[in-house]
Amino acid sequence: QWMMLDWKPRRSDMLIDPFGIGRIVQDGLMFRQNFSIRSYEIGADRTASIETLMNHLQETALNHVKTAGLLGDGFGSTPEMCKKNLIWVVTRMQVVVDRYPTWGDVVEVDTWVSASGKNGMRRDWLVRDCKTGETLTRASSVWVMMNKKTRRLSKLPDEVRGEIEPYFVNSDAVVDEDSRKLPKLDDNTADYVRRGLSPRWSDLDVNQHVNNVKYIGWILESAPQAILESHELASMALEYRRECGKDSVLQSLTAVSGSDVGNLGYFGSAECQHMLRLEDGAEIVRGRTEWRPKYANNFGNVGEVPPASA
Amino acid sequence: QWMMLDWKPRRSDMLIDPFGIGRIVQDGLMFRQNFSIRSYEIGADRTASIETLMNHLQETALNHVKTAGLLGDGFGSTPEMCKKNLIWVVTRMQVVVDRYPTWGDVVEVDTWVSASGKNGMRRDWLVRDCKTGETLTRASSVWVMMNKKTRRLSKLPDEVRGEIEPYFVNSDAVVDEDSRKLPKLDDNTADYVRRGLSPRWSDLDVNQHVNNVKYIGWILESAPQAILESHELASMALEYRRECGKDSVLQSLTAVSGSDVGNLGYFGSAECQHMLRLEDGAEIVRGRTEWRPKYANNFGNVGEVPPASA
Repeated sequence: QWMMLDWKPRRSDMLIDPFGIGRIVQDGLMFRQNFSIRSYEIGADRTASIETLMNHLQETALNHVKTAGLLGDGFGSTPEMCKKNLIWVVTRMQVVVDRYPTWGDVVEVDTWVSASGKNGMRRDWLVRDCKTGETLTRASSVWVMMNKKTRRLSKLPDEVRGEIEPYFVNSDAVVDEDSRKLPKLDDNTADYVRRGLSPRWSDLDVNQHVNNVKYIGWILESAPQAILESHELASMALEYRRECGKDSVLQSLTAVSGSDVGNLGYFGSAECQHMLRLEDGAEIVRGRTEWRPKYANNFGNVGEVPPASA
Repeated sequence: QWMMLDWKPRRSDMLIDPFGIGRIVQDGLMFRQNFSIRSYEIGADRTASIETLMNHLQETALNHVKTAGLLGDGFGSTPEMCKKNLIWVVTRMQVVVDRYPTWGDVVEVDTWVSASGKNGMRRDWLVRDCKTGETLTRASSVWVMMNKKTRRLSKLPDEVRGEIEPYFVNSDAVVDEDSRKLPKLDDNTADYVRRGLSPRWSDLDVNQHVNNVKYIGWILESAPQAILESHELASMALEYRRECGKDSVLQSLTAVSGSDVGNLGYFGSAECQHMLRLEDGAEIVRGRTEWRPKYANNFGNVGEVPPASA
């Protein structure tokens, strides 16, 4: 059972957040922020892309830290972390999407943190339709500390624990942990390989590193077009293994299991295994995605798709 | 002299727009929307990217049409345009950026439309810092109609004119028209050529066409790294000439004029000419960009850049 919330749409809450920065709720343990889905955040299907959802998760995580007064450096590290040259890095991310919102929809994102093992932190998110309260997305992630000079993982120092522990919520993860091992793909086991992927200037974050959300676009680069066109991403598990910098050239590998892509039709589900690696073989990300037919719950809505203005 | 506005920050205005959809102001002739700059909208420089700014312009344009009750098809066309299979296409865009906002800044975007010649429409935007009223960006664009079946340009039908003319503002463009011709580049005149650019799945809009904002990323792909790292885009003029679909493979060409890139240093300005073309030579976009040293007005702010969490 994950966290129980006495949730109801509260317009009065929204009125005290006119700039859309979000606010602390639930006795200071949870952070809530609304997002109006914008026209440029929707894709070919007219629904928000998975990258958009992940961006909203990232934004609420940072605003949570900021609003709690724990932002030491302007990008997620606490004051004690800054002193010790520590940064957060994500090692695992699981996302389940029940429904994708569309342009003009307002989503409400709740986020909170918990302990994860001795040296990690779990961050969960729950995304709901602001009007109906319907759950749209659940996500759970695990973070550990890295020394930004040595780029090695670090234990959680007591001083940092002292800063963040008061915010820890005692709850199970909002997404059950998928304990299936993510396999390592290679040229023989992958069905699709896309080579020569390199960051665009605009993919880089303030440290000229590639933000983890960008990896998702690259993973999908090797997913077969047939799945992208007829299916939507229902869930995703990612294991982040290594950093990627501005001069990295990546390969994206995908293996499709449990279904023959040529015979997918409109009704079958599909599961894919993914890997992003450097050209020398070093692994960046392993992943698994599950896909459901796009119009499975949606017949009758499949009208003519009007063109966009240029 | 462009449109005079009696502008002042108005918090009461913001409170009536809790969802951030924006609203009509100025006797119904102008549309205004606030955007809080999000963490994922900033780039390596910690400031909003030019794509972010352009996305905000697109969003306000669509919300303007929607709020005026003129949205026939959900993506910018009026009811009469839908009947006649007409869509808006942008032919020209000029943008001047005085200052880029950073994460957490709130910008206020005003937009309005005017006649442009006999068959066109001009749309202008003025972007200000919501706190100070300082002008950050001005942009002006020209739109014409295209038949979405034949893909040919169309005259402005009287029925459509009847719908949109009541919204036309009688004012000069917010950016003086840059009447200098945009030259055609080729392999001989370009200093930098980047080949093999193709849309990612996530670059496609609802019509599986590439949205015009995405072109800017491709244009910058052939701009020399030295300029991107030490300079910021001060202004841009784009001429859109042809559509680009999901299977297009593009080449991005840049010529640097008025400056030797090798000797740019931190203090010189630079001007570039750009072209995006298909591999068969067909032109998609011509452009000109002007660049100023990044830290020209900004000494003292150039501290250590902290890393982003992964």
